[in-house]
Amino acid sequence: MRREAPARVVFDTLPSGLYPECSILRTSATIQINTMVLRTDDFIAVSPLADRYCRVRDASPALCRTLEPEDYVVQSMPTVSPMKWHLAHTTWFFEQFVLVPHRPDYEVFDETYHYLFNSYYLTKGQMHARAERGLLSRPTVAQIGMYRRYVDQHILAMLDEGVDGELYGLIELGTHHEQQHQELMLTDIKHIFSISPLEPALLHAKQRTRTAPLPALRFLTMAGGLKKIGADGESFCFDNETPRHQVFTEDFGIADRLVSNREFRDFIAAGGYTESALWLADGWAWVQANAIDRPLYWSEDLDTEFTLSGRQAIDPDAPVCHVSFYEADAYARWAGHRLPTEAEWEIVAERATREGNFVDNGLLHPQPLNTSTQLEPDQLFGDAWEWTSTPYSAYPGFTPLAGSVGEYNGKFMCNQMVCRGGSCATPADHIRPTYRNFFYPQERWQFFGIRLARDI
Amino acid sequence: MRREAPARVVFDTLPSGLYPECSILRTSATIQINTMVLRTDDFIAVSPLADRYCRVRDASPALCRTLEPEDYVVQSMPTVSPMKWHLAHTTWFFEQFVLVPHRPDYEVFDETYHYLFNSYYLTKGQMHARAERGLLSRPTVAQIGMYRRYVDQHILAMLDEGVDGELYGLIELGTHHEQQHQELMLTDIKHIFSISPLEPALLHAKQRTRTAPLPALRFLTMAGGLKKIGADGESFCFDNETPRHQVFTEDFGIADRLVSNREFRDFIAAGGYTESALWLADGWAWVQANAIDRPLYWSEDLDTEFTLSGRQAIDPDAPVCHVSFYEADAYARWAGHRLPTEAEWEIVAERATREGNFVDNGLLHPQPLNTSTQLEPDQLFGDAWEWTSTPYSAYPGFTPLAGSVGEYNGKFMCNQMVCRGGSCATPADHIRPTYRNFFYPQERWQFFGIRLARDI
Amino acid sequence: MRREAPARVVFDTLPSGLYPECSILRTSATIQINTMVLRTDDFIAVSPLADRYCRVRDASPALCRTLEPEDYVVQSMPTVSPMKWHLAHTTWFFEQFVLVPHRPDYEVFDETYHYLFNSYYLTKGQMHARAERGLLSRPTVAQIGMYRRYVDQHILAMLDEGVDGELYGLIELGTHHEQQHQELMLTDIKHIFSISPLEPALLHAKQRTRTAPLPALRFLTMAGGLKKIGADGESFCFDNETPRHQVFTEDFGIADRLVSNREFRDFIAAGGYTESALWLADGWAWVQANAIDRPLYWSEDLDTEFTLSGRQAIDPDAPVCHVSFYEADAYARWAGHRLPTEAEWEIVAERATREGNFVDNGLLHPQPLNTSTQLEPDQLFGDAWEWTSTPYSAYPGFTPLAGSVGEYNGKFMCNQMVCRGGSCATPADHIRPTYRNFFYPQERWQFFGIRLARDI
Amino acid sequence: MRREAPARVVFDTLPSGLYPECSILRTSATIQINTMVLRTDDFIAVSPLADRYCRVRDASPALCRTLEPEDYVVQSMPTVSPMKWHLAHTTWFFEQFVLVPHRPDYEVFDETYHYLFNSYYLTKGQMHARAERGLLSRPTVAQIGMYRRYVDQHILAMLDEGVDGELYGLIELGTHHEQQHQELMLTDIKHIFSISPLEPALLHAKQRTRTAPLPALRFLTMAGGLKKIGADGESFCFDNETPRHQVFTEDFGIADRLVSNREFRDFIAAGGYTESALWLADGWAWVQANAIDRPLYWSEDLDTEFTLSGRQAIDPDAPVCHVSFYEADAYARWAGHRLPTEAEWEIVAERATREGNFVDNGLLHPQPLNTSTQLEPDQLFGDAWEWTSTPYSAYPGFTPLAGSVGEYNGKFMCNQMVCRGGSCATPADHIRPTYRNFFYPQERWQFFGIRLARDI
Repeated sequence: MRREAPARVVFDTLPSGLYPECSILRTSATIQINTMVLRTDDFIAVSPLADRYCRVRDASPALCRTLEPEDYVVQSMPTVSPMKWHLAHTTWFFEQFVLVPHRPDYEVFDETYHYLFNSYYLTKGQMHARAERGLLSRPTVAQIGMYRRYVDQHILAMLDEGVDGELYGLIELGTHHEQQHQELMLTDIKHIFSISPLEPALLHAKQRTRTAPLPALRFLTMAGGLKKIGADGESFCFDNETPRHQVFTEDFGIADRLVSNREFRDFIAAGGYTESALWLADGWAWVQANAIDRPLYWSEDLDTEFTLSGRQAIDPDAPVCHVSFYEADAYARWAGHRLPTEAEWEIVAERATREGNFVDNGLLHPQPLNTSTQLEPDQLFGDAWEWTSTPYSAYPGFTPLAGSVGEYNGKFMCNQMVCRGGSCATPADHIRPTYRNFFYPQERWQFFGIRLARDI
Repeated sequence: MRREAPARVVFDTLPSGLYPECSILRTSATIQINTMVLRTDDFIAVSPLADRYCRVRDASPALCRTLEPEDYVVQSMPTVSPMKWHLAHTTWFFEQFVLVPHRPDYEVFDETYHYLFNSYYLTKGQMHARAERGLLSRPTVAQIGMYRRYVDQHILAMLDEGVDGELYGLIELGTHHEQQHQELMLTDIKHIFSISPLEPALLHAKQRTRTAPLPALRFLTMAGGLKKIGADGESFCFDNETPRHQVFTEDFGIADRLVSNREFRDFIAAGGYTESALWLADGWAWVQANAIDRPLYWSEDLDTEFTLSGRQAIDPDAPVCHVSFYEADAYARWAGHRLPTEAEWEIVAERATREGNFVDNGLLHPQPLNTSTQLEPDQLFGDAWEWTSTPYSAYPGFTPLAGSVGEYNGKFMCNQMVCRGGSCATPADHIRPTYRNFFYPQERWQFFGIRLARDI
Repeated sequence: MRREAPARVVFDTLPSGLYPECSILRTSATIQINTMVLRTDDFIAVSPLADRYCRVRDASPALCRTLEPEDYVVQSMPTVSPMKWHLAHTTWFFEQFVLVPHRPDYEVFDETYHYLFNSYYLTKGQMHARAERGLLSRPTVAQIGMYRRYVDQHILAMLDEGVDGELYGLIELGTHHEQQHQELMLTDIKHIFSISPLEPALLHAKQRTRTAPLPALRFLTMAGGLKKIGADGESFCFDNETPRHQVFTEDFGIADRLVSNREFRDFIAAGGYTESALWLADGWAWVQANAIDRPLYWSEDLDTEFTLSGRQAIDPDAPVCHVSFYEADAYARWAGHRLPTEAEWEIVAERATREGNFVDNGLLHPQPLNTSTQLEPDQLFGDAWEWTSTPYSAYPGFTPLAGSVGEYNGKFMCNQMVCRGGSCATPADHIRPTYRNFFYPQERWQFFGIRLARDI
Repeated sequence: MRREAPARVVFDTLPSGLYPECSILRTSATIQINTMVLRTDDFIAVSPLADRYCRVRDASPALCRTLEPEDYVVQSMPTVSPMKWHLAHTTWFFEQFVLVPHRPDYEVFDETYHYLFNSYYLTKGQMHARAERGLLSRPTVAQIGMYRRYVDQHILAMLDEGVDGELYGLIELGTHHEQQHQELMLTDIKHIFSISPLEPALLHAKQRTRTAPLPALRFLTMAGGLKKIGADGESFCFDNETPRHQVFTEDFGIADRLVSNREFRDFIAAGGYTESALWLADGWAWVQANAIDRPLYWSEDLDTEFTLSGRQAIDPDAPVCHVSFYEADAYARWAGHRLPTEAEWEIVAERATREGNFVDNGLLHPQPLNTSTQLEPDQLFGDAWEWTSTPYSAYPGFTPLAGSVGEYNGKFMCNQMVCRGGSCATPADHIRPTYRNFFYPQERWQFFGIRLARDI
């Protein structure tokens, strides 16, 4: 985790540390919000949760430290949200799921925010249309900064008093929720910048390169049988990872690394995007309707790609990313293999080390393999989310969380595909082998990569 | 070569029974196609396949015997095809998959038909746009009748000579393909007639009613464990039913019958269509965008429904049908249960009797339960396709058929849900326990019903 | 009351000439409509109006004599209507504007037809959606034939009894209305056939050709000043042609003939479709959005065009047609000239002979100029409607007709352009110098041509 | 060359009056743009044009003085542009039409701006898509402020050196162009703020009210005949106002004031929005498709409206505004009158005083009539643009300007309606009797009002 000072302060009134030691606790300035006077040093981190809360909350504005106020406003497509919406929505989550129901005397920061910053919790009431988030200039970034401070003070006050199991769970959920939005902030600002003729860069990070050639992709044999997958609930997990349950799998082979840019270029050169027989019917229709002929962000000559560090030459050894499920599936068929099921992936990942190229190292792009020999599958965590062949649905016996947070995961269990393993934009302490992410098969703006599998 | 239309529509001369004795073989009249004279009684059904071929081919025009020429032209929505398109496409299937590749001297009936009547076999070449099938008045019904006769004569000649295993398989596949289109012809003409202010009826079939009250729905307990599902390939099946493979299932309960119209009306009365918490996110968006508040074909007052016998009072005891997966899923959640997985359904169906309300009895509408006590799950076959909770995807080790027929099933394994058991529009000899049908979750124009299941 | 379809299509018994002697009067066969027996020779043409009525009504089905029943059903785009809709709507016009309000004991043929065959008369009640006319297979062509006979008998009975001025005007209006639809039937079936890969022909008419070269286009000088245009109401006209009123015009030049296909090919060769500066802003947007690069119905190689006689070589001497206002305007700008105003056109046409290439000669396509020297502007009438530069709006002091027929013209006086002179699909006795036709500037499926004008 | 953003937004330093003394000349502070040092007081207003240039250029940022940086980014619908786009585009106009072609040594401020800030000058090259102007966060407001300063310095230097007739005309055109955009900035920010649930106000201006009742609307009689309209080119005008030419008009009546909110409420109460017979066909389709039932910005209860001073009670005496041509036309028909032609309007306006409620008084909303007796038509200038019944087209003999500025007006002469007289958002020195504005008939976001006329 990086703890360096940023070049600029985003919120004028906020302390300037980006990944500082917990800045909220450290600051002793007196802040006056309306008529209420709060002294921020009243709050001491008395628990790991308060510590986690502070670290996670600080990390969100830290991601924005190079942005101009105008950059926070734009929504480049309906699945993207403006930066300031993310900053406000993650705060709203704590306000509406923790403070409002559990602090009877809590006064909301602004009555209109409930309507503006609800994402999709229908049981919480009406909300502003998702596709129109970029049409709102107000509240300003500065106002949202005040909102964050206000809610932070109240949550920290609660934590200082001590919280019971349910509240603990909700606040912990809120921090994981915010980490998910931190990943979205990075993929969203990447998309926002990518459609600008000016091609701004969020940062200037030097990427790793290989000196030795990338070893050929190999398949490692895994034993099947009746296995258990899913979370046992001992430590934090989302509801969709439960319950732990048995699945039967045949023996299978799993690729020892992600598919590289060079390998994906071979697929393009071989006419992969023009041969209908390689594609699912819906995928082919999508390719035709959108004139798809290369991964998102690649230049037409296949030489460069837009990254969070601006336009860069494509490293042939780095994992291909920003491909849809359809492209991943077509590539696998062309290569004579297939994508893994989510059960296969989890069986492999359960015994792998959880290291990888995460947001914490600040590279914000998939990196070429670090090693020359692989006895174990590598790149399982970090770098790029791995499309599985498994449609996202409920595990046997699945029960969503009670109340509105029950809308968190369960209602999306249709028409989406499971992705596993996290990416270069995922916080390291956010991912785990049982983690189930899910996206529509045509989506590409996340860091999506390809891991192959095969029958044996 | 292009052939002129005959003076009269050829179907007028067909017997009117849905499954008549095999008219092609039985008819001894001399038919003159331009200058070529054929005597149909030259062909004798020397094999079960020839017999099946004749029966299936006769059944398609037989379904149309009450139609006017104008009725064959209309396409009421993109997923519906005109009746004359179905009659031509099923014929094209035999021409392109059997005659052209396997009869070197075969002359196609009309060069343009390959473009016009290819449905989705991209590896077979370009095709006419699906959504524009209703914009073509030519070829006429009469010309398509000639086309059917022409291809029939050639296929029967082949069968008379004897065919090898591959050809046998392709012709058999063609008959099952045509049976699928027979079901589509019925659901399509239902939709076509339903949007007409004149509400024409295809037929006037007296529906069954119950005298005794419908028994309350009960759940029968099924033992789980490691089970085998899928087809072993001993008799005809589609490729998507293979290979037979092991799945692990917990013990579960399965409803003894389909959900009735009365029960579904209770769901509506309880506000089921207005309570977002009951719905999948995509389902709720679909409900809102399309103002869905009742099954397709139901009148606004929930009293009548449009059927193939015209507008009829809704029988509260009959199974609800023409509901989408989203509605089936929301109903199940409202009822406190869930839909079965396709594995659960097949485990139950494997030991059930394969009787039911099929197209053969000519009722063309789901019927109320016939019995008063159920020791076994009833209505598993016929009446209405049962939505399962399982997204349609490949069985482990699945390999599509070689060549263009490989496009038959495999490429649709994304974004669709598995349906099981057949309907009142399915031929009785077309269905089996391993049969996997699949549709997009918002579709309603097929006879789709609801079977509940639950954890125990 | 609803009537059943007769056994045979009624139009088969009509004479095949486009303008036969009046068949309704001539036919003495006894026709039985259910239990009502009518002898058609009971009715004698006692007036010019009855004579006109019979001729016009006969002409509509006569245009269809080569069509198959399936051809009457298709609607190829929203502005096109199915042939059977035209046949029914023109009949509905007489039923709803003449019979229902003026014959208290008249029983409508079928209650549902009022909803189905109202085109746009909102004050007459709800109507079937225009874009969905092609989704209705019923009523059949045969039923609509019965409808026509039924209404004809009643109108002729009225005329036999004698009608007053208002009724006379309404029936006369109905015949002109039907003539407008006859032109639409031809342009609509042309479009319907054009989108079929089979490219059917309505007829096989030998087109005229020139032996001598087409003389170069010249401008004739016309004196301006304060002039009168518009109809004085002495003989039949539509309300939009009134009142006759004064306009001031400068002197101007008018082209002596229509722009030819050869001349329009020069425009294409010179890059006319790719040079934005030649186009109105909305026209350029239309060209870009629809990838327009040649007149409607022209082949990509600019060698052939689809006509009502099937695909034919483009005659370079014939007038270019099926161009939009945008194309006509861009051509004129490219040629260094402009389109005439409608006032200029009428000033020229008022003193010209009203001869031309009309529907009556059965060629159904614009013809090359017949002469070699022109002292007068030629091709003003017939061949192709001439786009003027004048937006369609009300003449000073314009008052629409009273009642629902007031919707006939007035409400369209926005966003459309005035066309003048009639076309090869217009009946000769339907056109006059004051006749104002009007279309949206992007429309092309009518026979639209180009006459140039210029300032002097 | 690309320039970095300065530390502060440049507009903050501007004086806050809408029409301050010319701040560019007055300011003597030294501004450093990178390494180039400029002293703004090097430039002295040596001519009325320099004076006008300074006043107009200052007025644009002055309109924004209450905005936050985020407010400059949003585009609320395709016809609206972001504030920062307006500020940049008006600058680009001077750069591309004056500096680049006429100053050989001029270096453009930023190469990318030509693509980003071209509005619709196709002959100037490719441009960024109009509907996507709100997707660009960069360049920032501060960068655009630098751009304005940079171009201003160069233009003022040119003016200091002295300019010839053509250049003089182009710079003068640029100032009128910028004034048009100032009006758009106000109508655009009004729309942007109106769709925000927070309903921000641009300013807080006290509106005028009447103490005496508003006098009943009367018609003043105007003599027709052969008249001249259009600009003679003696002083500045747009090309579309030329040439001055003769038109013939009958005598007519013209309303002495604009239609009031109270009168328009009567139209609504009388069912005006539900009676199809009052509407043009395209207008009725627009009403139905968009569920239009009141002027834009009116609350559902017809009591309040959104204004640039936030939500306000509707003053029944003030002129109705934000109505489309369709609504204006339907209102006039309902009232038994009609809209004036543009010739009629100009004949009336030519002899009227050119006073009115313009942007200069800072009210930014139409005001109730100031007087109690009207001998002359009032409110002809200012308050609200008056829809005429005249489609926008070329005057006889019209010739557009040479070169790319020829795209300014001429290419829009189709599908739009002429509006006259200016509004409360128009600068007083920008309007004149011959001024022709033009909009699509469904547009409402400008200050559009209704003046009645009638035949006599």
